[in-house]
Amino acid sequence: MTRNLPAGLTATVVVAASSANLGPGFDSLGLALSLYDEIVVETIESGLVVDVEGEGAAQVPLDSTHLVVRAIEHGLQSAGVQAPGLKVHCRNDIPHSRGLGSSAAAVVGGLAVVNGLVAQAGSEPLTTAELIQLASEFEGHPDNASAAVLGGAVVSWTEHEGVLPRYAAVPVQLHPDIHLFPGIPEERSSTAETRVLLPDQVSHTDARFNLSRAALLVVALTQRPDLLMEATEDVLHQPQRAAAMPRSAEYLQILRRCGVPAVLSGAGPAVIAMSTQSELPAEAVEFGIANGFTVKEMKVGEGVRWTSGVAAAR
Amino acid sequence: MTRNLPAGLTATVVVAASSANLGPGFDSLGLALSLYDEIVVETIESGLVVDVEGEGAAQVPLDSTHLVVRAIEHGLQSAGVQAPGLKVHCRNDIPHSRGLGSSAAAVVGGLAVVNGLVAQAGSEPLTTAELIQLASEFEGHPDNASAAVLGGAVVSWTEHEGVLPRYAAVPVQLHPDIHLFPGIPEERSSTAETRVLLPDQVSHTDARFNLSRAALLVVALTQRPDLLMEATEDVLHQPQRAAAMPRSAEYLQILRRCGVPAVLSGAGPAVIAMSTQSELPAEAVEFGIANGFTVKEMKVGEGVRWTSGVAAAR
Repeated sequence: MTRNLPAGLTATVVVAASSANLGPGFDSLGLALSLYDEIVVETIESGLVVDVEGEGAAQVPLDSTHLVVRAIEHGLQSAGVQAPGLKVHCRNDIPHSRGLGSSAAAVVGGLAVVNGLVAQAGSEPLTTAELIQLASEFEGHPDNASAAVLGGAVVSWTEHEGVLPRYAAVPVQLHPDIHLFPGIPEERSSTAETRVLLPDQVSHTDARFNLSRAALLVVALTQRPDLLMEATEDVLHQPQRAAAMPRSAEYLQILRRCGVPAVLSGAGPAVIAMSTQSELPAEAVEFGIANGFTVKEMKVGEGVRWTSGVAAAR
Repeated sequence: MTRNLPAGLTATVVVAASSANLGPGFDSLGLALSLYDEIVVETIESGLVVDVEGEGAAQVPLDSTHLVVRAIEHGLQSAGVQAPGLKVHCRNDIPHSRGLGSSAAAVVGGLAVVNGLVAQAGSEPLTTAELIQLASEFEGHPDNASAAVLGGAVVSWTEHEGVLPRYAAVPVQLHPDIHLFPGIPEERSSTAETRVLLPDQVSHTDARFNLSRAALLVVALTQRPDLLMEATEDVLHQPQRAAAMPRSAEYLQILRRCGVPAVLSGAGPAVIAMSTQSELPAEAVEFGIANGFTVKEMKVGEGVRWTSGVAAAR
């Protein structure tokens, strides 16, 4: 039976951007970044009020089709509760359609909002495993969703044994010598568009190539950052996407030619360098500036956090 | 210029069996086992004398086509030396043609013999990286070769950028809670025969499946043995080999149904269970006995060791 939440509950969520794939770890490896969206929600007597500051403010819909709202509704339903009305305020720092996990952040954030709300109604919050499952089901990218839920670096995987896929992930400890330099271009892309470039079939040799690098990447990220160049090689998706995002491909080439391990962030067009050096080489920095990439060092992101309280406590 | 080694040098090598692939880590992950071949070599005035005790004693050739002898000759050539004659004694505990890396052990062992010999002639030994490269070139299985060279668990990979493939590997620390139970059948197989069962092309989905499990397997082997069941799933080679080795396939099924993470060892037909339990379930033990599998717990194997000394010191 569905329980009704009272008006006047609030919840605040902070949720990180993420880079998925990390080269060879297609649909599996993910890494949260210290770039966060904040969502503040209040249950109200009736209706829906959505406002958005920052990234996407002029573009995203401000009604029930808003991704955060849809995720909140999904979470409420999963938790067996409903809200009379909702006021949703989003302060977005994660750029949209760049491959930085803004959709996963919106969905994980919306679900975590529900945790903040139901805690005040005496219900159990969704566990991290449930957040990963629900967010991945909803949004389709377990690598981004897991990184947003757990923070840090993650290995995610998908089980197809039952009717619905089961998503799971495990955190891995990023080696402290690794500096993260996302390069965020002005141009946008969308995963739906770029995924169609991937072939249905690949050679057994290429499958073996990527699985060895994905295994090696776990070693490199956690213990052997000196092996990140070899560990970030990929033949399953980056070469196929290069033509669709030539500037990202060229930026990657320059970074790697300079000895900096770098990969597409998710389906691009953002790029992320994972370097043991504390600065990027001048040639790469210059290319980035000349081609509209915003490049700055970020820390690894934290897992999603939610807080709750009555509105008066804000 | 090739230098001649004097007669009367000896070298003794101990080299481990290994399981390659470990499920999803096809051609990449490997694990040395505490089952060893010993090779004792002496340089003699002329000719070649080979004798073999133990596994393969009645089957392997006792001339210059013997795999250990070929590896010694290859190593001598790489080291820029030659021997007037060789007396080679092999004490083999590693069964042949079961998927336990006996060929890789023979080749790594033969190369390491050269290290034992040249040390007495004042030459530098081959490094572990060189041993991995030479053995993998010679025998074609970098996963087995790397495990035999380094010991323990390894992630190996192959670079195809130059004219010749470059092979490399990195050790990973096996979690102490993991018990290893190889199951060694009486029936033989050969990698050359079984590899032809593999398709040239696989789906992108299957490639993603295996790469996520290969990444997860590194996490499971080193830190999270509780995830070994999920981490040992594979769609790239074990299902394809099942028809060729039905008893191994059934034994694997029984083990996994009982909750024991188990995979083919290399290309089979040996099987290896990697369990957090100190015993195998009765059902699996009974099936093993009834179907000609020798099952006993082994420790993780050590890396290849060589010692050298003049013949009189033996």
